[in-house]
Amino acid sequence: MKTNSITILGAGLIGSLMAIYLRRQGLDVHIFDKRPDKRKASYSEEGRSINMALSHRGWKSLEQVGLKDKVLPLAIPMYGRKIHDEHGRTTFIPYGKANQAIYSISRGKFNQLLTEEAERLGAEIHFEYKCQEVDFRKQEITFETPQGLEKLQPQVIIGADGAYSALRLSMQKQIRFNYRQEYISHGYKELTIPATSEGEFAMDPNALHIWPRGKFMLIALPNPDKSFTCTLFLPFEGSKICFEKIKDEKDLETVFRAYFDDAYQLMPDLKTEFFKNPTSALINVECYPWVQGNSLLIGDASHAMVPFYGQGMNCGFEDCYILNQMIEKLGTNSWDLIFEKFQKKRKPDTDAICQLAMENFIEMRDSVADPKFQLRKKIEAKLHDLYPKEWIPLYTMVTFSDMSYAEAYALGKLQEEIMDRVMADPLITENWNTLDYEDIINQMETAKAV
Amino acid sequence: MKTNSITILGAGLIGSLMAIYLRRQGLDVHIFDKRPDKRKASYSEEGRSINMALSHRGWKSLEQVGLKDKVLPLAIPMYGRKIHDEHGRTTFIPYGKANQAIYSISRGKFNQLLTEEAERLGAEIHFEYKCQEVDFRKQEITFETPQGLEKLQPQVIIGADGAYSALRLSMQKQIRFNYRQEYISHGYKELTIPATSEGEFAMDPNALHIWPRGKFMLIALPNPDKSFTCTLFLPFEGSKICFEKIKDEKDLETVFRAYFDDAYQLMPDLKTEFFKNPTSALINVECYPWVQGNSLLIGDASHAMVPFYGQGMNCGFEDCYILNQMIEKLGTNSWDLIFEKFQKKRKPDTDAICQLAMENFIEMRDSVADPKFQLRKKIEAKLHDLYPKEWIPLYTMVTFSDMSYAEAYALGKLQEEIMDRVMADPLITENWNTLDYEDIINQMETAKAV
Repeated sequence: MKTNSITILGAGLIGSLMAIYLRRQGLDVHIFDKRPDKRKASYSEEGRSINMALSHRGWKSLEQVGLKDKVLPLAIPMYGRKIHDEHGRTTFIPYGKANQAIYSISRGKFNQLLTEEAERLGAEIHFEYKCQEVDFRKQEITFETPQGLEKLQPQVIIGADGAYSALRLSMQKQIRFNYRQEYISHGYKELTIPATSEGEFAMDPNALHIWPRGKFMLIALPNPDKSFTCTLFLPFEGSKICFEKIKDEKDLETVFRAYFDDAYQLMPDLKTEFFKNPTSALINVECYPWVQGNSLLIGDASHAMVPFYGQGMNCGFEDCYILNQMIEKLGTNSWDLIFEKFQKKRKPDTDAICQLAMENFIEMRDSVADPKFQLRKKIEAKLHDLYPKEWIPLYTMVTFSDMSYAEAYALGKLQEEIMDRVMADPLITENWNTLDYEDIINQMETAKAV
Repeated sequence: MKTNSITILGAGLIGSLMAIYLRRQGLDVHIFDKRPDKRKASYSEEGRSINMALSHRGWKSLEQVGLKDKVLPLAIPMYGRKIHDEHGRTTFIPYGKANQAIYSISRGKFNQLLTEEAERLGAEIHFEYKCQEVDFRKQEITFETPQGLEKLQPQVIIGADGAYSALRLSMQKQIRFNYRQEYISHGYKELTIPATSEGEFAMDPNALHIWPRGKFMLIALPNPDKSFTCTLFLPFEGSKICFEKIKDEKDLETVFRAYFDDAYQLMPDLKTEFFKNPTSALINVECYPWVQGNSLLIGDASHAMVPFYGQGMNCGFEDCYILNQMIEKLGTNSWDLIFEKFQKKRKPDTDAICQLAMENFIEMRDSVADPKFQLRKKIEAKLHDLYPKEWIPLYTMVTFSDMSYAEAYALGKLQEEIMDRVMADPLITENWNTLDYEDIINQMETAKAV
């Protein structure tokens, strides 16, 4: 069937937001998703994390499509990291200034809100349509459906079908498609800290809790039902502490008592959950070009990243924001041009955030436990206070601004070099408050000018 | 159908040689190839190079299976590179010592010889069997055949099905499979220098001819019918000289007259061939693990490299040699162990040769034209003459020895640093013959010891 409509693959967070944008432009939008409609069928989120961290880039897109107020009640602000040491002592490291937070939000309800909004605006959603193949010469997509194969020739196809994208798999068979998928050596498992018997949060709900243990870590994010979703990151195998070596409840108890005892005391269902819940892998995907014929990849389909900067969803939302901006500017008669401009502009940014996400894993599981690292953050915060424009900490550029990721990355590397020199002072712990902050800023200005 | 036999995917060079090895061990071997039997049907080699350079690692395997004498008549020795400058002047740079050569051989006949040998030894070959999917849990492979789908449950599967391997595509959908495919910015087109009207070679047949032009190049390898197969490597687009900008016969003539005039005079069919023959892309593939369940990737399926070191086929043959050695040692009751040991041993080597192949492109198209580079080769040859064991040039280690590629790579990097220092002497052109060669060797020994 030939049609002038736009096909979006994937009714996930990114596909749904993209549909909202396109409906607001008055375009004919059909979303196809391989899964059944979760409002009708039982539905598993296997292999996807339950909690996301929504931050500035995400909010900006939601605000633009008028959804900020609807989403806010689903979200819990986290103003910083709460670091738990082996003895249960905690340290709080703010993410930014006093009012700056990232927001814990559950995938399920948020996704449903976006999908329903897309539908309300007139997007047609087709569940149980699995993309089998895209033929780029014929501009034809073949779906497997419960009624058999179905073929469609849409005007354009936007693949928002995630890290294991079917559209991308068809692209990969095309000549000159560069592609890379890389799994890190760690896997993760989701666990729960339920609400207390009084129905309250068992820990401070306005922080992202981290138990950094060098090569591994546990984290916890709050939920509106006053539970926390915990995620345990361990190497799959080959280390003293790894998933392979936790074979029974005794092994599990030994590890948790030794490394996460304060959390352990709050996890009555640990033993059941640990052996019931899947151990999932963490993938990084980079590819190029994102465009083939009339088809474009966005979100995780073109740049799946590890979750350690909390930017996967935010970056996908920003994809929608930027693509929408280009459609507004260039009109809908020049999809070729739009797609070409989009990929050229966006690729360096998504490369940068993929890289930052990878690097941040070491920071989260290891550096945050180091008093020197905490001091470094304090010095950077002070620099930012004194010179709000001249020194914006990397985390702030990424999380609380919409500066391009590539620019943030480049500036972050300059800051890193300067801060390495600052921290090399053996008396820094005593001297930090009386440093020549102006000189640091001058160093940064010089570095930028080069 | 469940069977105790071994399934090899791909009746190409590597699949056929592997079958020969396995038949010599008395194993039940079935080869499946998606293409029709070329002895029966017309057959295109589209997307594959016509000429290969057979060198030591390849010969070693062929000798082991008793095929050296059958292959020799198909092969033409090339003792060095013959560099053609813009004025048609040539310089000869030997590859190694006087008797050391790489051998030009045509893919078609060579492949047929190996496939027939496999068949003669009792391997069953099934043409027009296209692997559609491998189910690693069921250890089941599904083929598309002219008679419909066919399923098989072999004891083990060896994927020798090339750079676009179907087995690898099934593996790629498995969790924790790391994969990377990367196209370089250059493509290639095959052209011909026919025999002269007297039925003779139009140029020296015992050399690999190169027209290095910086960002692009032309090469030529001799054929037994006294023609040369030329390969033109150009950027696809975006450069002054690139495939995109050669739109008609006039453009073509301008480029060839300006850059390859001596070759141009020998190419009567250039204009027809250029616009008839495909422009092909060059891929590098790296992945890991190579093993999934009872299946193993070998050859290009696990490590497709760019052709600039002439090692793709030789490396694939060495895969067969090493795998055969492990089977001999460990017996056929422990395929798991064999496959695991094979991939662990072999992966660092194939990574090294993929990298070297990439780096050698710059050498071939650019450095070889530089008198300083030629002098450098001369100094290295002299070092090798004086100290045959202490200084083996990188090209010699890769091409004329069976030292592991990873070791060759590491030693090559040490040599490079030392030679960079040697060549930094502004008077090197005058002094090279009176250098303190012993001191260079001492530097190398020190570097190795670190």
